[in-house]
Amino acid sequence: MSEPLFEYLLRRGDDCLITAQRLGEWYAGAHEMEEDVALANIALDQLGTARLLLTYAGEIEGAGRDEDALAYLRDDREFRNCLLAELPNGDFGHTIVRLLFLSAYQSLLYDRTAEADGVDERWAAIAAKARKESAYHLDHSAQWTVRLGDGTDESHRRMRDAVDALWPYTGELFESETTGGRAIDPATLRTGWLSTVEPVLAEATLTPPVGGWTPEGGRRGVHTEHLGLLLAELQSLHRAHPGATW
Amino acid sequence: MSEPLFEYLLRRGDDCLITAQRLGEWYAGAHEMEEDVALANIALDQLGTARLLLTYAGEIEGAGRDEDALAYLRDDREFRNCLLAELPNGDFGHTIVRLLFLSAYQSLLYDRTAEADGVDERWAAIAAKARKESAYHLDHSAQWTVRLGDGTDESHRRMRDAVDALWPYTGELFESETTGGRAIDPATLRTGWLSTVEPVLAEATLTPPVGGWTPEGGRRGVHTEHLGLLLAELQSLHRAHPGATW
Repeated sequence: MSEPLFEYLLRRGDDCLITAQRLGEWYAGAHEMEEDVALANIALDQLGTARLLLTYAGEIEGAGRDEDALAYLRDDREFRNCLLAELPNGDFGHTIVRLLFLSAYQSLLYDRTAEADGVDERWAAIAAKARKESAYHLDHSAQWTVRLGDGTDESHRRMRDAVDALWPYTGELFESETTGGRAIDPATLRTGWLSTVEPVLAEATLTPPVGGWTPEGGRRGVHTEHLGLLLAELQSLHRAHPGATW
Repeated sequence: MSEPLFEYLLRRGDDCLITAQRLGEWYAGAHEMEEDVALANIALDQLGTARLLLTYAGEIEGAGRDEDALAYLRDDREFRNCLLAELPNGDFGHTIVRLLFLSAYQSLLYDRTAEADGVDERWAAIAAKARKESAYHLDHSAQWTVRLGDGTDESHRRMRDAVDALWPYTGELFESETTGGRAIDPATLRTGWLSTVEPVLAEATLTPPVGGWTPEGGRRGVHTEHLGLLLAELQSLHRAHPGATW
């Protein structure tokens, strides 16, 4: 039985790592140079937080795995990211809506973690660093959501499709987790998340779908086929040249 | 006949833009997370300098082209980057040797430009900002060159192959350019460049090849087939969705 905080940090770290990888796929593929730079910066923030979380998770585990071992040498069944993070990018609208949903969640989690009593100290310190970056990710994606949702007919249609497609995956974010009393249970974040996201969607003239299917499984390692393909790209070089000594 | 400073800045800006694109291809493809972050940061630095240079070049041209028009709406024959920048990444050794050669050149050019009298003021200010970043790019690539060149038999062999393959392309960097008296002629940088690069190669137990073929043409728009493929990826989204209004 794993230490609960190890599992908890792995989930958070994997969310960041997989998000960084997906955003990195946009590199120099956005429609303007300014947005290229913005998405690349957000990807780097997520990668930076992933490194801190995976390093600490590895120390807690005590089995000698460092950030590279955790990032590059786990199979997809050992990854703990939410399914939302691993879905393919789709068009720019899908990428923005995914970032809105995910950064609203991360921002709230980091804020609560940095401020709560009794949280593991090092995790609280990581959250305190990440919260400022996360607030920017949320702001950036919220601005694009409004601009495109309340934009042309075509941009509105694309954003509506993105919200319809991605909303069901947000349910998984709020599954209750064992924290050993040293972290915030994500189940307590749902109300705060809704009061962040719903006004943005309303201003963007978008409405979330009602009811329906709620995919889950990521937090216990049951992933979509998309994660395997993503990991093949992420891990290939390291596995071919372990330790970079050729 | 184009304004000489427009052509001059376009050459510098295109070097940065194409280098950023090539380094971006490594995103999450390096062998360790730390190096992923390093290469992505260098790519972002290059992209940032490209934006400043292309914006200013567009203003000098006075034809209403902004950074996006220059980055996304030129054909390969209109690009002015050196051939060295557009070659495929190859293995990690090739990427590092290319970065060593190019950042030694950029670092020297930015230093001289920031310090010289009579240089165009805004170009000197861009160079003054870029020189600090460029010094880091040079330091990073020099460290890897030594570590891998003076490493295992296999890493030495790969680095030797990279130096042999890329060295001929460095000749083009020092072609004389018309500057209208407002910029440093790259032809004056060759001696300084050699005294930067040769000691690094020596410490890495590597030697440059002697004589032979010196490819050129990039500075007047005659490129390898690799640039066309790179631009197809860089420009596809912008051309499909000009102005991002869908």
